[in-house]
Amino acid sequence: MIDKVVSVYGYGRFGKFWADILAADFHVKVYSRRGLKSDEVSPGIEITDAEDIYNCDAIFFCVAISSFEDLLIKSKKHFKNNTVYFDTCSVKVEPARWMKENIPQESKIIASHPMFGPDSYFNSPDKLPMVMCNINVADEEFNWWKDYFSGKQMRVEIMTPDEHDKMVAYSQGIAHYIGRVLSDLDLKPTLINTLGYQKLLEIMQQTCNDSWQLFLDLQKYNPYTKNMRIDLQKSIERIYKSLGDK
Amino acid sequence: MIDKVVSVYGYGRFGKFWADILAADFHVKVYSRRGLKSDEVSPGIEITDAEDIYNCDAIFFCVAISSFEDLLIKSKKHFKNNTVYFDTCSVKVEPARWMKENIPQESKIIASHPMFGPDSYFNSPDKLPMVMCNINVADEEFNWWKDYFSGKQMRVEIMTPDEHDKMVAYSQGIAHYIGRVLSDLDLKPTLINTLGYQKLLEIMQQTCNDSWQLFLDLQKYNPYTKNMRIDLQKSIERIYKSLGDK
Repeated sequence: MIDKVVSVYGYGRFGKFWADILAADFHVKVYSRRGLKSDEVSPGIEITDAEDIYNCDAIFFCVAISSFEDLLIKSKKHFKNNTVYFDTCSVKVEPARWMKENIPQESKIIASHPMFGPDSYFNSPDKLPMVMCNINVADEEFNWWKDYFSGKQMRVEIMTPDEHDKMVAYSQGIAHYIGRVLSDLDLKPTLINTLGYQKLLEIMQQTCNDSWQLFLDLQKYNPYTKNMRIDLQKSIERIYKSLGDK
Repeated sequence: MIDKVVSVYGYGRFGKFWADILAADFHVKVYSRRGLKSDEVSPGIEITDAEDIYNCDAIFFCVAISSFEDLLIKSKKHFKNNTVYFDTCSVKVEPARWMKENIPQESKIIASHPMFGPDSYFNSPDKLPMVMCNINVADEEFNWWKDYFSGKQMRVEIMTPDEHDKMVAYSQGIAHYIGRVLSDLDLKPTLINTLGYQKLLEIMQQTCNDSWQLFLDLQKYNPYTKNMRIDLQKSIERIYKSLGDK
């Protein structure tokens, strides 16, 4: 065990998964505003309250993107200089800005995006991408966390929030968008799935394991997804027209 | 070796792949109107001409859907009563109708769709779907071929051409359509691909290994793909609007 207390704020599908990963190495505390029962958390994990959750060496916010700024504003009085503050949002420009605005400059901030969930993490033969953006942490501490994640099933990629958002708009953003379109179409497995169709069904199922709120937030809070959607629409129209439909 | 002579008419990407599979068990003859050199075909396979290709126990037409009807009309004088005629088109209603109209009723016709290509066949842990539609063959002969394919890496599914076309419009048809849209968008791998995005890239690459002609034919000659495209467009619009873009 590593001698650090690590908090996970928010205990949805991702928060639970993330707390379980951290609990292999740290004393982990969790809090959710909906209230947690002891049989909901894995053995060894401590359930605590909205104040004590901030008494820790590092805290990971695992809350909806759309509720994160409000949470930071309401939590101002609890922030401490020696704690490392991590967000885990699927967009990075806005959450990084909110953290800089609301967490005192003397605190330590790392914006992060673990680019996987329980579906992919436990079934991947390869390490999965973990994006880290150093907002205002000393190199030594940043590298300590980088090495920690690299020792897990993660491949750390260091970049700026802007670089991250540009990249994911046309990758994760488009996969979620297409997954939601296919789900709206209500596609079903058939007797004669081709391999390509099988993969489309997997994308649909995986996307729809995440909440509709995450989908909306991914599209709304990433400054680059609007252009992605416009480009996608143009490509669809070009293919549609090439068939002489219109 | 099985004591049958089997012909493959057309030697594009699929024809070559199909001839190689058959050559493990039969004496195989191949013909392509573009002319074939001996170093293009696998050892043991016989290159023949546009007339002799019809001297066989069974013939598989591996030509573009859009050129198949013309080929049948031009080949009328070569058709023989004891040969089994297979098409391998990715749509079934129209090719089955063309075969019934142009091949004498005393001949034996099986409409088929091997729902895989070299990309998927050699990399799949599971058997892959092979659709067979009995147009006018005695059960015994139909079952002989069914058993033959079932002994390979194929799972035979028997259905009518209409059932096939309905099913594939919303499976293979949609996967190819989305693959072409993504290719038009010119998506690239990134440092931080999610698993879902990785699958989208695979669909794009696999789709674009097939010819543009196959894509057009899949969309044009299947009576059900037009509705699929309209439904897809409606779903895209619903998701687009749910984001308040328009």
